[in-house]
Amino acid sequence: MAGFVSFVSAGPGDPELLTLKAVDRMGRADVVLFDDLASGPVLAHAGAQAELIAVGKRAGKPSTKQDHVNALLVAHAQAGKRVVRLKSGDSGLFGRLEEELVALRDTGIASEIIPGVPSACAAAAAAGIPLTRRLSARRVQFLTGADVTGGLPGTINWPALADAQATTVVFMGKRTFPKLAEGLIAHGLPGTTPALLAEAVGRAEQMLHRMSVADLAAHLRDARTDQPALILYGPLADDMGVVGPENT
Amino acid sequence: MAGFVSFVSAGPGDPELLTLKAVDRMGRADVVLFDDLASGPVLAHAGAQAELIAVGKRAGKPSTKQDHVNALLVAHAQAGKRVVRLKSGDSGLFGRLEEELVALRDTGIASEIIPGVPSACAAAAAAGIPLTRRLSARRVQFLTGADVTGGLPGTINWPALADAQATTVVFMGKRTFPKLAEGLIAHGLPGTTPALLAEAVGRAEQMLHRMSVADLAAHLRDARTDQPALILYGPLADDMGVVGPENT
Repeated sequence: MAGFVSFVSAGPGDPELLTLKAVDRMGRADVVLFDDLASGPVLAHAGAQAELIAVGKRAGKPSTKQDHVNALLVAHAQAGKRVVRLKSGDSGLFGRLEEELVALRDTGIASEIIPGVPSACAAAAAAGIPLTRRLSARRVQFLTGADVTGGLPGTINWPALADAQATTVVFMGKRTFPKLAEGLIAHGLPGTTPALLAEAVGRAEQMLHRMSVADLAAHLRDARTDQPALILYGPLADDMGVVGPENT
Repeated sequence: MAGFVSFVSAGPGDPELLTLKAVDRMGRADVVLFDDLASGPVLAHAGAQAELIAVGKRAGKPSTKQDHVNALLVAHAQAGKRVVRLKSGDSGLFGRLEEELVALRDTGIASEIIPGVPSACAAAAAAGIPLTRRLSARRVQFLTGADVTGGLPGTINWPALADAQATTVVFMGKRTFPKLAEGLIAHGLPGTTPALLAEAVGRAEQMLHRMSVADLAAHLRDARTDQPALILYGPLADDMGVVGPENT
């Protein structure tokens, strides 16, 4: 009997932000493969029969290679199991989903993708900020602040990122933000642009810090913390002022 | 007794893609104000006591002005009601949330924002496509293809949008895509870039059409359909090939 893999988006961490479909798939899983950021209370939705397997890559634990995750997915599905591959936020965003999908396709294993609440949307909601605005932010962009080496990616679209008329959310960018901010300011983004540092979004220890892009860069230059974090910048000011009619 | 407004994200339309928190707020609402795109089966989660009020703006119905929505929100909350303001997708994306938040702040009414599944994430999931890829799409961007007049917005960041190394999702852009595509190609995006037209995402009548950016522009030049749709373009090809090591 062929198994099946459900890629289930766990949302930002708050188990109340799981979708009904995610809860259903968790409850019927034989095996749940989860990342560090998709652990904690969300795992309580797995049934008593489910085998829970951590495949996280974060600091302090031995690294689990992507190839190993792929092999585990394939092996459990080939054994006829209902496999849930739990990924934090939305599984299609910065989760290396393509590599796992390719591994399943190469072995003929059927799968589905259950979309979820991106941590970027949860961070903005927690801060009371819309990600887009009718006049001042018609574009929102998400990017990763680090490549596999942990450094700033080599190819950066500066005109896209230095645009003060867009809301930008940087994932995994706490360490590289000082360098990113230098480039942004050099490419015309005002250092006074509002920014938000959102740590541990959707968890009990959630912290939101508002400051300017320049001040956040200075703050992070000295910061030492392993909390996962998102950085938002753009038209985030509390007054929600709109810009001039030339942009209608 | 003061009322309270919950901005609840309804997700793309499939009621199974509501979050547990959204279901909870729907079940306890006295009043639900909903848009056309946040109607249908998701409303079944409202309790029997709830008054359901359509405030949609789409074709075939008299337009409900934003000011009128704001006034309704304030009036029901000031009457001491638990108000749910239901918005399709994630409420922080292209939902004019800022205008409603300002109306509540100006009148001292407390509110919360429940994030949800963006229709862009649901469209990609339905098509089996990740929105980001480790090597070929480290940036994803969402934008609106139409301003309040229905035309292409006057200010467009072409270097951001004509970037073949990003995944772009255009909301409300079916009518303006032929013109947008002209500009994209003029600014260097290959006309052969893969594109996906996703209509009625998360609903029974969902349709996914894959073609190139140039072919989609030609197709939409002649199309006559009122189905809500998203347009995705970028590294969406089925083979999920990765690009050269210079981009690692």
